[in-house]
Amino acid sequence: MSGVFFPISETKHLAPGSTCPEVTPGLMRLYNMKFCPYAQRTRLVLAAKRIPNEVVNINLVAKPDWYFARNPLGKVPCLEFDGKVIFESLITCDYLDEVYPSSPMLNSTDPFRKAQDRILIEMFNAVNSNLYKLYRCSLDDESTWKGAIVGIHKGLQIFEDDLAKREIQFFGGQNPGIVDYMIWPWMERLPSLPILSHEMLKVQMENYPSLVKWFDAMKEDDAVKESFISPENHAKFITSFLAGNPEYDMEINK
Amino acid sequence: MSGVFFPISETKHLAPGSTCPEVTPGLMRLYNMKFCPYAQRTRLVLAAKRIPNEVVNINLVAKPDWYFARNPLGKVPCLEFDGKVIFESLITCDYLDEVYPSSPMLNSTDPFRKAQDRILIEMFNAVNSNLYKLYRCSLDDESTWKGAIVGIHKGLQIFEDDLAKREIQFFGGQNPGIVDYMIWPWMERLPSLPILSHEMLKVQMENYPSLVKWFDAMKEDDAVKESFISPENHAKFITSFLAGNPEYDMEINK
Repeated sequence: MSGVFFPISETKHLAPGSTCPEVTPGLMRLYNMKFCPYAQRTRLVLAAKRIPNEVVNINLVAKPDWYFARNPLGKVPCLEFDGKVIFESLITCDYLDEVYPSSPMLNSTDPFRKAQDRILIEMFNAVNSNLYKLYRCSLDDESTWKGAIVGIHKGLQIFEDDLAKREIQFFGGQNPGIVDYMIWPWMERLPSLPILSHEMLKVQMENYPSLVKWFDAMKEDDAVKESFISPENHAKFITSFLAGNPEYDMEINK
Repeated sequence: MSGVFFPISETKHLAPGSTCPEVTPGLMRLYNMKFCPYAQRTRLVLAAKRIPNEVVNINLVAKPDWYFARNPLGKVPCLEFDGKVIFESLITCDYLDEVYPSSPMLNSTDPFRKAQDRILIEMFNAVNSNLYKLYRCSLDDESTWKGAIVGIHKGLQIFEDDLAKREIQFFGGQNPGIVDYMIWPWMERLPSLPILSHEMLKVQMENYPSLVKWFDAMKEDDAVKESFISPENHAKFITSFLAGNPEYDMEINK
């Protein structure tokens, strides 16, 4: 089977006054926000494992009351199926990988390799925490943005070294695995930085030849294509979000 | 087999100028700090699963250089065995549970129960983050300590409700499981608060009858006994730590 795998249905971003769409028996439901990198992790795993699903998008600045009955924290991603609910991105992804062990298996079956992969995912916090700092910081605050860029480079170097050492195309081997999909959402957003604010926030990638090859290969992955958003639209969304009027449905209306 | 299970050997807290003790082939080594709640998680799992191990304690305010060759982050816990290294408390614990599946298995073999347990462990952050706030805050800063105590009660209520709903002694069932051991280190430290500073920081437990019973049962567990430190000594350590002169070896010299 090849080609892009879409969810069976996808709603606009629901807000107070909406009704929770009726559950389709036997179908996995993902509560999502189109631009949330954590929810994208779960979406990538659903697509990679070709698990039929429906997507209910949630307006995260004005959440519908009924959503808290699913997830008391009110966050996305959240999975619902057979009256059961699971949230937290890594927990949902590991769950899906365990209950749908059919190809491809994303976590390694070797416990040591699996532990190393989980450590790598933790270390990616250096990149994702600093990306959000850059989204929010003013260019006048030079020490903050310079520090954040140094932090991102430190993080990227860990992944460059690891990938070069493994001598494989993806962290998962011949195909993307759990590390690839867990870090992708923020890698997809990195090129939005110079569009969003200024060329000086561009993260120069020339010292990361393995990661650049990885990035290009990931963009061709079917699961990545399913949820891919262009750097221009990521920048447009962040701009609208920071202005207090997030254009959640931008990608749905197109 | 019953009775308290000790590690085979345990060093004082090693600092710069020390030499890394030679590795014992085939023996699991834990890099630890006697009062670190995260490292205690791993220690509890080693003891619960009766995995023979040696403990090398690390002075965390003055770390020996050689330690960074094991863990580039310089944190504990860290496991070393057969030239391999794993760190991050939850990752070390899950790894041990996977490679030593002999009784007792701490994670549920049901993927949904396992996911629910991982969510519960995440939710315990409400308790552990606020405990450390209380350790550090001044009693003059009333809004901070009152807010932290409210946060702890919110967290405890989640666990009380969950335990009452399960109608079992431990979160793991008849015996402690992964949730029990992952939250225990901070539960052990809660009674140190009123000793450390003031009776008003005492976390009143009368609204948590299931948790109180759980607490008493946990104190009788062999794995808990192995690393148990009294509220008095926790308070003494925190006092020395906040004064800039942590008494790391207090429990080893006794």
